[in-house]
Amino acid sequence: MNTKKKIAIVGVGLMGSSLALRLKNEGLSDEIIGVDSNLEHIEIARTQKIIDGSMNLMDAIEASNVIIIAIPVDAIIALLPTILNQVKDQIVFDLGSTKATIIAAIQNHPKRGRFMGTHPMWGTEKNGPLSATYDSFKNRAVVLCNQKDSDPDVLAWVQSMYEKIGMRIVYMNTQEHDLHVAYVSHVSHITSFALANTVLEKEKEETAIFELASGGFESTVRLAKSNPLMWAPIFMNNKENVLDVLAEHINQLKKFQRAIEDSNKVELLRLMDKANLIKNIIP
Amino acid sequence: MNTKKKIAIVGVGLMGSSLALRLKNEGLSDEIIGVDSNLEHIEIARTQKIIDGSMNLMDAIEASNVIIIAIPVDAIIALLPTILNQVKDQIVFDLGSTKATIIAAIQNHPKRGRFMGTHPMWGTEKNGPLSATYDSFKNRAVVLCNQKDSDPDVLAWVQSMYEKIGMRIVYMNTQEHDLHVAYVSHVSHITSFALANTVLEKEKEETAIFELASGGFESTVRLAKSNPLMWAPIFMNNKENVLDVLAEHINQLKKFQRAIEDSNKVELLRLMDKANLIKNIIP
Repeated sequence: MNTKKKIAIVGVGLMGSSLALRLKNEGLSDEIIGVDSNLEHIEIARTQKIIDGSMNLMDAIEASNVIIIAIPVDAIIALLPTILNQVKDQIVFDLGSTKATIIAAIQNHPKRGRFMGTHPMWGTEKNGPLSATYDSFKNRAVVLCNQKDSDPDVLAWVQSMYEKIGMRIVYMNTQEHDLHVAYVSHVSHITSFALANTVLEKEKEETAIFELASGGFESTVRLAKSNPLMWAPIFMNNKENVLDVLAEHINQLKKFQRAIEDSNKVELLRLMDKANLIKNIIP
Repeated sequence: MNTKKKIAIVGVGLMGSSLALRLKNEGLSDEIIGVDSNLEHIEIARTQKIIDGSMNLMDAIEASNVIIIAIPVDAIIALLPTILNQVKDQIVFDLGSTKATIIAAIQNHPKRGRFMGTHPMWGTEKNGPLSATYDSFKNRAVVLCNQKDSDPDVLAWVQSMYEKIGMRIVYMNTQEHDLHVAYVSHVSHITSFALANTVLEKEKEETAIFELASGGFESTVRLAKSNPLMWAPIFMNNKENVLDVLAEHINQLKKFQRAIEDSNKVELLRLMDKANLIKNIIP
């Protein structure tokens, strides 16, 4: 199989640009075409040699063998049917953090087989092509969703590409994916955003925060720097799972609240001993 | 001023052992005496050359110029009056994460002036002398509380020691300290413990967590590995501030909950745009 391709990256933000750099480094691409309505991002991506050139979406689809969609999930849902309308035998996949609503939007499309829904479990709180890194994605998992609905050559190329950039492939259906990521990604972000707002709301002495903040606070609040325009559509497209997990998280916080109110050391120790078991899962 | 001292470390866990290593490296100590009821910790600390020898508490007080108390805050409160009863002109300070109840316990003690309440803003989720590191405390803040109540030579030595190990000194009264650390440390820990419990409670497929967890989840849940025996007394000794901040945190989470329930993208963006301002404080 000739794996070297002309690749269009739709969205040259953090994810798309970081993947572009890896595709080039691994020799998986002859030419990378950037597509983005943000012309500043296109300019930066070109200057940083992340992309070789840019085109509008329709020309890029026509000119490419592979189309990678790296834009917010609501934009993926809006654009994906249009992209598939234009596709002949190109390979199309997305990097979105939710999968059910995206795949539902094209499930009955005649070109459904040319598309693969993927979610590489890598990212940072930064955004834009200037934040792209050469060392991204490695040693992380990538979820491929409903892989049997994609054509065999689409599956083969996407699998092979993710393996070459050092990712572990995990297969899930969209329901499993969206549930698990609510736990391991979406609600962690809400917690972090809410913690930042708690501090900003009530702690008037900002210099005190700055001076006293230690590694623990920094790591817990880091995700609160994430891009709102990316995360709002994620929460809304995984609404049921996110609300379910968030309700449970508030419930767990209230257990701590009650134990502290009651000065119940036995219960506090029980709650934290249980939380310590996360060591067995995330060493 | 002769800064080289015979130093007793009461509690050779993570904090006490890490400080012992720094004191030795900076040439601030002739001899470090370990005091701990956990004989396994004493044995490890001796084998690792963190301490030069061990004694019981009373002998160690008698034999030392400086006594550093690095045990859980409830144990500090229980032990500190006894320690001060035995003190002649020794320098005594603690490393506890709360300050008001500790200082209240000895405020009227005739040897009050020999004590300084301190809180170095460094730690990790690990515990025990095997987790001690040579590179701890550097470039972090240390809070000295109610410094005017300590004798000038106590203040001078403690200041000088913290400066030599690379810490920035911040002066606060106990009320200010306990309020600020509720924000930047205590509630971050509760959030992390509760997030771990949320996942452990509802996510049955542990392999899915392990496989999908990315850097974001790992950093948010890291503090959930912290030692319950250290943290329960902290929450109970800073009860009012912790409950106040925790109530606000739950309130902030509910704002996200309502916005997601209502599919209110404008409100979600507003909440996250606000949280993003944490970048101005913690770059």
